[in-house]
Amino acid sequence: MSKKKYVYLFSEASDVGKEILGGKGLGLAEMTRIGMPVPQGFTVTTEACTRYYEDNRQIAPEIETEIFETLTKLEEITGKKFGDPSNPLLVSVRSGARVSMPGMMDTILNLGINDEVAEGLSKLTNNERFAYDSYRRFIQMFSDVVMEVSKTRFERMIDDLKEERGVKADLDLTAEDMKELVKRFKEIYRNEKGEDFPTDPKVQLLEAVKAVFRSWNNDRAIYYRKMNDIPHEWGTAVNVQQMVFGNMGDDCGTGVAFSRNPATGENELYGEILINAQGEDVVAGIRTPLPIAKLKEIMPKMYDQFEAYSEKLEKHYKNMQDMEFTIEHGKLYMLQTRNGKRTGTAALKIAVDMYNEGLVTKEEALLQIEPRQLDTLLHPQFDPKALAAAKPIGSALPASPGAAYGQVVFHADDAVEWVESGKKVILVRLETSPEDIHGMDVAEGILTVRGGMTSHAAVVARGMGRCCVAGCGDIKMFDEEGYFELNGEVIKEGDFISLDGSTGNIYKGKIDTVPAEISGNFETIMEWSDEIRKLDIRTNADSPRDAKQAIEFGAQGIGLCRTEHMFFSGDRIKPMREMILSKTEEQRRKALEKLLPMQRSDFEAIYEEMQGLPVTIRYLDPPLHEFLPTEEEDIVALAKDMNIEVAELKQVIASLHEFNPMMGHRGCRLAVSYPEIAEMQTTAVIEAAIAVKQRHPDWNDFVEIMIPLVGEVRELKFVKDVVVRVADELISKSGLDLNYKVGTMIEIPRATVLADEIAKEADFFSFGTNDLTQMTFGFSRDDAGKFLTDYYDRKIYLSDPFARLDQTGVGKLVELACDLGRKGRPDIKLGVCGEHGGDPASIEFFHKVGLTYVSCSPFRVPIARLAAAQAQIKNPR
Amino acid sequence: MSKKKYVYLFSEASDVGKEILGGKGLGLAEMTRIGMPVPQGFTVTTEACTRYYEDNRQIAPEIETEIFETLTKLEEITGKKFGDPSNPLLVSVRSGARVSMPGMMDTILNLGINDEVAEGLSKLTNNERFAYDSYRRFIQMFSDVVMEVSKTRFERMIDDLKEERGVKADLDLTAEDMKELVKRFKEIYRNEKGEDFPTDPKVQLLEAVKAVFRSWNNDRAIYYRKMNDIPHEWGTAVNVQQMVFGNMGDDCGTGVAFSRNPATGENELYGEILINAQGEDVVAGIRTPLPIAKLKEIMPKMYDQFEAYSEKLEKHYKNMQDMEFTIEHGKLYMLQTRNGKRTGTAALKIAVDMYNEGLVTKEEALLQIEPRQLDTLLHPQFDPKALAAAKPIGSALPASPGAAYGQVVFHADDAVEWVESGKKVILVRLETSPEDIHGMDVAEGILTVRGGMTSHAAVVARGMGRCCVAGCGDIKMFDEEGYFELNGEVIKEGDFISLDGSTGNIYKGKIDTVPAEISGNFETIMEWSDEIRKLDIRTNADSPRDAKQAIEFGAQGIGLCRTEHMFFSGDRIKPMREMILSKTEEQRRKALEKLLPMQRSDFEAIYEEMQGLPVTIRYLDPPLHEFLPTEEEDIVALAKDMNIEVAELKQVIASLHEFNPMMGHRGCRLAVSYPEIAEMQTTAVIEAAIAVKQRHPDWNDFVEIMIPLVGEVRELKFVKDVVVRVADELISKSGLDLNYKVGTMIEIPRATVLADEIAKEADFFSFGTNDLTQMTFGFSRDDAGKFLTDYYDRKIYLSDPFARLDQTGVGKLVELACDLGRKGRPDIKLGVCGEHGGDPASIEFFHKVGLTYVSCSPFRVPIARLAAAQAQIKNPR
Repeated sequence: MSKKKYVYLFSEASDVGKEILGGKGLGLAEMTRIGMPVPQGFTVTTEACTRYYEDNRQIAPEIETEIFETLTKLEEITGKKFGDPSNPLLVSVRSGARVSMPGMMDTILNLGINDEVAEGLSKLTNNERFAYDSYRRFIQMFSDVVMEVSKTRFERMIDDLKEERGVKADLDLTAEDMKELVKRFKEIYRNEKGEDFPTDPKVQLLEAVKAVFRSWNNDRAIYYRKMNDIPHEWGTAVNVQQMVFGNMGDDCGTGVAFSRNPATGENELYGEILINAQGEDVVAGIRTPLPIAKLKEIMPKMYDQFEAYSEKLEKHYKNMQDMEFTIEHGKLYMLQTRNGKRTGTAALKIAVDMYNEGLVTKEEALLQIEPRQLDTLLHPQFDPKALAAAKPIGSALPASPGAAYGQVVFHADDAVEWVESGKKVILVRLETSPEDIHGMDVAEGILTVRGGMTSHAAVVARGMGRCCVAGCGDIKMFDEEGYFELNGEVIKEGDFISLDGSTGNIYKGKIDTVPAEISGNFETIMEWSDEIRKLDIRTNADSPRDAKQAIEFGAQGIGLCRTEHMFFSGDRIKPMREMILSKTEEQRRKALEKLLPMQRSDFEAIYEEMQGLPVTIRYLDPPLHEFLPTEEEDIVALAKDMNIEVAELKQVIASLHEFNPMMGHRGCRLAVSYPEIAEMQTTAVIEAAIAVKQRHPDWNDFVEIMIPLVGEVRELKFVKDVVVRVADELISKSGLDLNYKVGTMIEIPRATVLADEIAKEADFFSFGTNDLTQMTFGFSRDDAGKFLTDYYDRKIYLSDPFARLDQTGVGKLVELACDLGRKGRPDIKLGVCGEHGGDPASIEFFHKVGLTYVSCSPFRVPIARLAAAQAQIKNPR
Repeated sequence: MSKKKYVYLFSEASDVGKEILGGKGLGLAEMTRIGMPVPQGFTVTTEACTRYYEDNRQIAPEIETEIFETLTKLEEITGKKFGDPSNPLLVSVRSGARVSMPGMMDTILNLGINDEVAEGLSKLTNNERFAYDSYRRFIQMFSDVVMEVSKTRFERMIDDLKEERGVKADLDLTAEDMKELVKRFKEIYRNEKGEDFPTDPKVQLLEAVKAVFRSWNNDRAIYYRKMNDIPHEWGTAVNVQQMVFGNMGDDCGTGVAFSRNPATGENELYGEILINAQGEDVVAGIRTPLPIAKLKEIMPKMYDQFEAYSEKLEKHYKNMQDMEFTIEHGKLYMLQTRNGKRTGTAALKIAVDMYNEGLVTKEEALLQIEPRQLDTLLHPQFDPKALAAAKPIGSALPASPGAAYGQVVFHADDAVEWVESGKKVILVRLETSPEDIHGMDVAEGILTVRGGMTSHAAVVARGMGRCCVAGCGDIKMFDEEGYFELNGEVIKEGDFISLDGSTGNIYKGKIDTVPAEISGNFETIMEWSDEIRKLDIRTNADSPRDAKQAIEFGAQGIGLCRTEHMFFSGDRIKPMREMILSKTEEQRRKALEKLLPMQRSDFEAIYEEMQGLPVTIRYLDPPLHEFLPTEEEDIVALAKDMNIEVAELKQVIASLHEFNPMMGHRGCRLAVSYPEIAEMQTTAVIEAAIAVKQRHPDWNDFVEIMIPLVGEVRELKFVKDVVVRVADELISKSGLDLNYKVGTMIEIPRATVLADEIAKEADFFSFGTNDLTQMTFGFSRDDAGKFLTDYYDRKIYLSDPFARLDQTGVGKLVELACDLGRKGRPDIKLGVCGEHGGDPASIEFFHKVGLTYVSCSPFRVPIARLAAAQAQIKNPR
C-alpha cells in the first residue's frame, strides 16, 4: 500500500486536484508551473484537515514528519533555513479551502521569527526597524489568530506607545519602539496564556497549522458554508509560503488587483497598492492605498510586468483574475490568484468581451457566469440616483427581489379596487393566506409583519416575481384603524411607501424604479445559452400577466398553470364555495356551471399570451377546506350569503377538517370523488382551446392537461377517462383538428416506483418536486421550519431540500421514475415544475437524468436558460 | 401464433390452472380425471370473461364458435343432442371464479329445453310431470337470473295455482298443472320483456354465459370481493354440464355433504339429502332435507358409494371436502367438490387428525388452516350457554374481538380507580383520545358512540387485545349525569353490561366468559409451526400486562415497545407537560428527572416479564402537542397547575401547533432538538437493564434501542452518539457485562433509498410500515377514510393498504431497503413492527424478502406463527 501524501511543494503539486490542495494552493502550484514569480512553499492538504478531525483534533505523527521533511526541501529551494539567525526562512501560513471562504482564518505573516532570528534579520537586512516591526507583527497575529488573545489589546498598546512618543503614524515609531513593543506584546501573551510566547519556529508552525484546521469549524465558517451550500466534509488546506516583504522601503509595496473591473466588467486593471507596507496594512485600512493606475507613474516597470502577468493569468485561467502581489526591492512577486468575484452586469460583459477577444469559447464564456447573479438584473431596481437620497425607515427579510413603490392598502379586495382605478399599491398584511392571492397579484409589492423566507407571502411573491419584504416585526399594525407604525413613523392607508425586496429595506415615500430588460450582453448570453442547452425552459404561470412576463424572458411554454388561484378572487370564490357546500351532485354541477365561463376566459387569455406554445394546466389540487373561511365573521357572512344556518356551515367546515391536509383529500383525489369537477375543468380547457384554435388555425399541440397527485395507474386512468370523454365530444362537435395531451404529476413516492405502469396512461410526467420532497423526507414544509435549524446546526442536513433538490434521496426516486417512465412509454415527455426547476444545481441534475424541460417562475426563466446551457456544457448529452 | 383456447372439456382440462378454469371447473376436471362419476361438460374460461369486458361486453365470434364446437364434442361424449326432442341434451350453467364467491350468479338448470324438447323428454322418460316441471323451473331460473325478471312473480303464480287447485305442496301439482305454469310463465316473460321466451337452446346458452360474466360485476360480487381482497381483474369462468336429475322419482335425490364435521372437525360425513328433488329445492328450504346418515338406511349402497368417494376425494385433495351429488335412478353422480369451509376449532382438529391418519404431512396440515380463523380462539368468548339466554340491547361495529362484562364507567381515571378497588369495568366514551389510554388499558372492554373501525378506540383496543364495540350512534350519552340510554334502556354508571367485540353486540347485565387458551390441537399446530417457520415472531407491547400475554401466546421478544403511552397516565402526564412547556434546557432536564424513575420501573417490569428475550424500545415518537390539553377547561386547569398564565399556556400550545403533525416535529427529530430527552430515555433503559442483569446474570442481549423516523444517516448518528455516550458510561460504572443494540425504524421513503448508508450506523432495521404506507401513498390514515371508499367503489384500490401491505408500491421500497441494508451491513437484523406484522399475506411477503422477524400485537402472535410457517412451506428459504 503506497502511503498517502499529505504535503506537497508548490513545484510538485500542479496535477493534484483542487479538492486536495484547496483553491489557493492550486493557484500557487499553477502559477509556479507556468513560470510566474511565486515565493515558494508547500501545501498541507485538505485530507490532512479531515484526518485532523478524525484523529480527535490531533496532527498525526506521520503528517508532522511529512511537514518537516517538506520544510527541509523548501529550505533547499530557497537557500534559507527555518530558525537560522544567519539566514532565516520566514513563512506565511494561510488557509485555503476548495472555494474561497471569508469566514475562515486568513493569514499569519513572518512566522519563524524569535529573538535570535529578529536580531539576525536586522543584521542581514541592515534594517533593524524592519526586523522588529516584522517580529511585533508576528506576535500580534499569532496571538490573535492562533492563541485567541484579542488583538485590540495589542492595538491599544501601539496607540499608548505612540502617545508616549508623541507621534501620530505607525511609520513614525522607531526601531527601538518596535523592540519595546515586542517586549510588551510578549508580556501580554504571558499574562493571558500563563506561559511564554513560543520561541521554537517549529512549534509556531505546527500551532499555526492546527489553528487553520480549527478555523474550518468556527461559527463564521459554518455559517458561511450553510449560506453557500458548501459541504462541511470538505476541510481546508494550509499553505506555507516563503515570506517576501513589501515593507522594506519605498522600492517595496503590496497590493491586490482584478484583471478587469469587477463592477462594470471594463477591460482594465482595477485595484490598489500600498507602498512600503505588508498585506495586512491594506486590509487594516489605516493607510489609504493608491489606485493601481498610480503604480504606472511610481514604478512603471513593475506596472508593466504586473499587467503582463495579469494578461497571462487571464489567458491561462480563461477568466477574470483577482490577484495579490508584493514588490520587494523592485522585484515583483505574485502571491495569489483566483477567479474574481464580480457583479451580474460585469459577469455578462466580461464573458461576452472575452469571447470577442478570442480568449474563450462560447462554452467557456457561459461557464464564467453564476446563474443566480442574473436574478438582480431581472427585477425592477430603484433608480440609483433616487435611492442615494433616500433613507430606510426600517428593514426586514428580503423575501422576494425587486423594488417597488405604491400606496399602502391593508386588504386584498382594496388592492384590486384601487388598482382598477389606476393606482399602484403596496399590500401590507400581518401575514398572507390563499385568500389574499388576488390582492398580491395586482400589488406592486407586499410587506408582512409575520413570517419567514418560506412563509406564504414569500413563496407566492417569488412565484409571481412580485417584490416582497417579510417578517417586519417592528411594525405595529393598526389596520382596523387604517394605519401602521414603524420605528416611530406613522404610515396611513393611501400613503406612498417603497420596498426593496433584494435588501429588505422599507422607505417612506416614492422612489422611482428602472425596469428590468434583457438586452445587450444579457441578450447575447441568452442567445448562446439557447444555442447550447438541451433542456427546454418553461414557466409556472397562473395568469396572462405572468405568461406575458415569462414570454419576454424567453419561456418556451407553461409547465404549470395552477387553476386554484383563479378561484380565490372576488366574484369566483362564491360559486366555488357553493360548489364545496353542495350536498348533491346536482347542486355541485350547478355551481360548477357558474365557474365554467370564468375558467374558460382565463385559459383563453393565457393561450393567447403564449402564442401557441404549450400550456400545461394542472387540475384542481388543494383540499377544498382551503377555500372556506376560518374567521367567525367571515363564516357568518358566508352563511348569510349562502342562505344557510351558521351552525350548519360550521358543521360542514368541521367535516372537511383534515388532520394532515398535505396528505388529505386533494389533487386527483378530488376528481375521483367528484368527477364533475374534472368535467367542468376539461370543458373550460377545451372550449377555450377551440375558440383560440379558430382564430389561429396554425397553432398546434398547445393544450396539455395535467392530473396531480397520482399514486396509482388506475387512479390516473379513471380521471383521464373523464377528461377524454368530455374533450373528445367537444372537439368532435367543433369539427376542428385539435390535439391535447393528458399527463400526470409525479409527486407521490409510490408513483416513482410504479412509473412504468403509470407511463402507459400518461403522455407526459411532470415531477412535482415540492411535494415529492415533503413525502420522501416525511416532513411538511410548513412545519419543518421549526426543527430544520437544529438539523443545520448539527450538520445533519447541509442545505434546504426545498430550495435545492436532495439528489441523494429524492433524486434517486426521480431518476428511477425517469427510467421506469421511459420503459413504460419510450417517447414520454419528462419535466419538472417544483420550485427546484429554477435552481441551477438542481437544473444540472435534471439535465443529467434526461428531462425534456424544467419549469420555473417567470423571473427564473433567464437563470434557467443559462443553467441549462452550463449543464449541457458540463455533461453533454 | 397458436390460438388462445377459451373453452375446455372437463376431460381435457385437468392440467389447466385454477386461474383459468375457476375453482369449480378445476374440481370437475380433476374428478373426471380420477374417475369419479361426473356428468360431463365444459368450462368457458376466466380469460373469456376478461375478454368479454375488453370487447365491450360482447362475446367475440371466435369464442362463440369455440363454445359450440365444444358443445358438439359434448354431444358425442354423452350420446345426446342439444335441442333434439328425440334425445335431448340438457345442461346446467354455473359460474365459478378462482375462489368461491357467494355474491355471484349461481346456477341455471335444465337449459336446452323448449316446447318440443319438453314433449320429447316427456316421452323419453315416460314422465310428463317431470318433463314440464323441468321446463317451468328452467323458465323461472332463466328469467330471473339471465333476464332479471323478478322470481317472486313466478312464485306467486305457483301459489295462485295451488290455491286454484286446492293443494298445499308443489309435489301435489299434476303434469297438467306444470304445463299450465309453463304457459303462464311464458306470458309473464312476454309482458315483462316485450318479446317471446327464447326457444333456441343455443340462444339460451349464450345468454346464460353472458349473464354469468355480467354477474362478476354485480354489486354483491363487488362487495364480496372487497371484503375478501379478491382482485377485480380475475373474472369468472362458466361451467356447462350435462344435467342429471334427482327429481325423477323416489330412487332419485340430491344432496350436499362435508367429508368431516365443519363445526367440530369430527371425522364423520356431515350433510343433508333430499329425496326426489333438484338441487334448488335444498337451497329453497321448502322441504326439510334429511341428515346424510339417513341415506344409509334408505339407500345403503348409495351411501357406501358416496362415503368411498368422499374418502377418495379427501385423499386426493388432502383436505376436508364440501361435495354436491345427485342420485338419478339409483346411480350416484358427483357434481362438485371443493375444500370445505370450517370453524377455527374444526380446522385445527382436522389438520391434526389428518396428519395422525397419515393422510397429510405436517406441512400440508398447516396449509389447511386459515390463520385469521385463529383469531376467534384467542380472545375470551361468552359462555355459549349463558349467551343463549341473553338478548342484545343494541349493536355497533365489532371493532376489536373478544367478549367481556364489567361495570360502566365514563372516565379513564374512574376506570383506573375502580379497577384498583377490585372491580371489572367497561369504559364508555363518546370517543377516545390518547388521554384515555390508561383507562382503556385497565378496562375489560370499550364502548364508543363515535368512530369507525380505524378510530382511535378501535386501533388502540386491537393493539391491546381489549374487546371493543365502536361507533354506537344509537347511544344517547348523558355521561355528565352519570348514565346513557340505548334503545330505551337506561344504563347508569356502575351497571353491568357485556360486550361482544366479535359481533358488535351490546348486552345488559353480566354474561360469563370463557378464557382463551392454547392447548390440545391448537398447541400441536403451534409446535409444528415453530418447527417449520424461519421468521421470528415478536410482539408489540407497551406494558408488563401485554408482555405477559404475548409470552403466553409464544412471542419471542418485543419488537416494538412504545414509550409514549407510558406518559399519559395520571401522575406522569404532569412532568411530561412540564418538560414540554420548559423554556430552557435546564427546566427541561428537571422535568425529565421526574420522568426517569417512572420509565425505569416500567422497563424493569417489562424486561422481567420477557424473561431475557429481546425488548426493542422505541424512543419518544409523537409530536409534543399531543400531550397537551385541547379543551378550554383542561387548559385552565393545567395553567393553574403549572402556575402560569392561561394566555401564556395558550401561546405555547399555539406555537406547537402543526399543519401536518404526521410530518412534523416528532420521532428522532425531537431527540435532535432536545438530546436531553434521549439521554433520559437511555438512562432509564440502561439503568433498568442493569438492575435486571444483576438479578439474572445469564440474560444477554435483551436491550434493543430503536430510533424512530430516521431519514438520513447523519441524523441517526447524532442520536446514536447521545445514546452510546450515556449508555456506555452507565454500563462501565456498573461493572457489568451488558450488551445493547441501537437500530432504527425504516418508515420514511428517503430511508429506504439510502438504507445502505443508514445500515452502517444501525444494528437493526425495523420497518414501520404504517408510516411508510402513509408517506409512500401520500395520504394520512386519519384523513384517507374520507375518500378511500370512492377509491374502492371505482376499483382503484382493491384492499386497505393499512391492513394489508401494498406489495407493488410500499413493498418495492421495503425490498429495496432490505437489499441495500444488507449491502451496508451484511449481518443486519431486519424486522417489521407496523400493523402489517400480524397480517398473514403481508407476513408471507416479509418472509420472502428475508426479514428476521415480524412483530405484532400479542393477540396476533399465534396467527403470525402459523402464517410464518405457511410462508416457509410455500417459499422455502
